[in-house]
Amino acid sequence: MTNVPYITLNVAMTADGKTDTIARRGALISSPLDMMRVDQLRAASDAIMVGGHTLLGDDPRLTVKTESLRKARLAAGKGENPIKVGIITNADLNRNCRFLNNGPAKIVIFTTTKTAPEKIRELRDLGVNVFVTEGLRVDLKKAITQLGNLGVKELLVEGGGTLNEELLKLNLINEINIYIAPLIFGGSSAPTFASSDGFEREYAKQLKLDSIQQYDDDGLVLRYII
Amino acid sequence: MTNVPYITLNVAMTADGKTDTIARRGALISSPLDMMRVDQLRAASDAIMVGGHTLLGDDPRLTVKTESLRKARLAAGKGENPIKVGIITNADLNRNCRFLNNGPAKIVIFTTTKTAPEKIRELRDLGVNVFVTEGLRVDLKKAITQLGNLGVKELLVEGGGTLNEELLKLNLINEINIYIAPLIFGGSSAPTFASSDGFEREYAKQLKLDSIQQYDDDGLVLRYII
Repeated sequence: MTNVPYITLNVAMTADGKTDTIARRGALISSPLDMMRVDQLRAASDAIMVGGHTLLGDDPRLTVKTESLRKARLAAGKGENPIKVGIITNADLNRNCRFLNNGPAKIVIFTTTKTAPEKIRELRDLGVNVFVTEGLRVDLKKAITQLGNLGVKELLVEGGGTLNEELLKLNLINEINIYIAPLIFGGSSAPTFASSDGFEREYAKQLKLDSIQQYDDDGLVLRYII
Repeated sequence: MTNVPYITLNVAMTADGKTDTIARRGALISSPLDMMRVDQLRAASDAIMVGGHTLLGDDPRLTVKTESLRKARLAAGKGENPIKVGIITNADLNRNCRFLNNGPAKIVIFTTTKTAPEKIRELRDLGVNVFVTEGLRVDLKKAITQLGNLGVKELLVEGGGTLNEELLKLNLINEINIYIAPLIFGGSSAPTFASSDGFEREYAKQLKLDSIQQYDDDGLVLRYII
């Protein structure tokens, strides 16, 4: 494929592989040191992508938090924040949500015909670039190519588990950064970062360990290349 | 508590925190290099404990595989294999299962009055040391103390997820060794190594990262102390 961005998946999990507690209220996992790393990763990206559950459940800002990093982006002729990208079957977003309002940032939403036409009109009126797939699910391959055509070279994916796994299945992820907090959340129903219908053992995704970064606070970042 | 053994939990998981695929057929995760590490860990232990689901589902041998390690145990005046310990509410084990027959090894089973009296008699006739808790669940604290009284100083716990989490909740685990395979299994229903009813965020188990061991095959062993 031409124009396909380099895609980095960033996740934060506990030592037992959980991305949240069973309560699923967005439990804090990253340490302050790791949040700085993620902010740098965001600042170095052209776009940041999240899935529908994350959009509706967490309503992330997806902005660069550190002022100096935003200024450096502007000085380099980039937008103050990376493009925010939402992948959402039914884009029933509240027009006052953080995703749509925190910025400034360009916003791109890939959705399906399940989204009401008046909602699509509303989003477009807000300046959102909306791509609508005919059918039940967003065509992720096509969405990635469209982002490439919009000039996105470095794409950061920040979950959730369904989007992450679907992108892995489509061989679209180039790199995974896993922050491992020195914590155990437990819980058989607690979420993990790849959580769709799974791979069969013989088709398990094989990774190459590229580097290990160790923080003073007992946190670790494992960087895998696919 | 006096006579309480030092308890090490050993687990193998994928980079996305899974201990098996969604099919739960005991997918291989450990590499040959890691299996050698686990065999050494077993050989250095006085007893190896597993829970009921693992006993019935995987029917593990729990023996030391390497002949030189078994000989070294004998030379040190120990049994050829560590004591095998099963924690199982209803000990409805097939008398021909590997857990009961592979050895030689002493076998201790902690169970409840849910196990039929004739099954308890059968197990005792086979030479198994059976402890029966009145009530619905095995009293893990008491079981650990009883193992200490039997001379167990180093106890290795090998799952499954319910037993692991219950022992963590009771503050009985001293150390966790996590092998991380360079694999993604995915699957929202795939198991993880701590998988009972979970911790609330404010009671999440806090770990200290003690060491990182990196294999040439991209596998990692993280050693955490609690």
